Amino acid sequence: MLPYYAVIFTSLKKAHTPDYSVMAQRMVELAKTQSGFIGIESARQEIGITVSYWESIEAIKNWKQKAEHLIAQKKGKYDWYSYYKVRICKVEREYEL
Amino acid sequence: MLPYYAVIFTSLKKAHTPDYSVMAQRMVELAKTQSGFIGIESARQEIGITVSYWESIEAIKNWKQKAEHLIAQKKGKYDWYSYYKVRICKVEREYEL
Repeated sequence: MLPYYAVIFTSLKKAHTPDYSVMAQRMVELAKTQSGFIGIESARQEIGITVSYWESIEAIKNWKQKAEHLIAQKKGKYDWYSYYKVRICKVEREYEL
Repeated sequence: MLPYYAVIFTSLKKAHTPDYSVMAQRMVELAKTQSGFIGIESARQEIGITVSYWESIEAIKNWKQKAEHLIAQKKGKYDWYSYYKVRICKVEREYEL
């Protein structure tokens, strides 16, 4: 139901990230258990794009502060990504096929 | 400069789409010439995610109505995609590494 919120996470991954994929999958599973979580979609080619959808800004803040997620964010910052950008967005309109 | 707008386009492509990649690349080039265009990012694995960024809702409306883009939208609807969803979003906050 509109409006809801989207977090657009775009990233460039470093070449050697042995612990990335297990942790990334774990974060998806953990996000799904969060209050206010709506959905998540990901794809990676040259760039990685993950968009997660949330009922409120409050739900996004809670997710950002989640202890296990804070550890992953730190790993992301120092070990996994050469670049990332996070955009917090209000979804105002939508339509689909 | 905040706020700006993001169009999140997620899609599932059909198996046989011979004219897709040339047209998709052409649409990226055409979008880049539009007034109010900021940027575009794409990745496809199981799902395709393309996010384009725009200075205003007006710029998004103009792009949606662009003649050559209307033809591509029709091809997308009938020939290329088994599913798609378009979300128009206001980018309210952002940060990056």
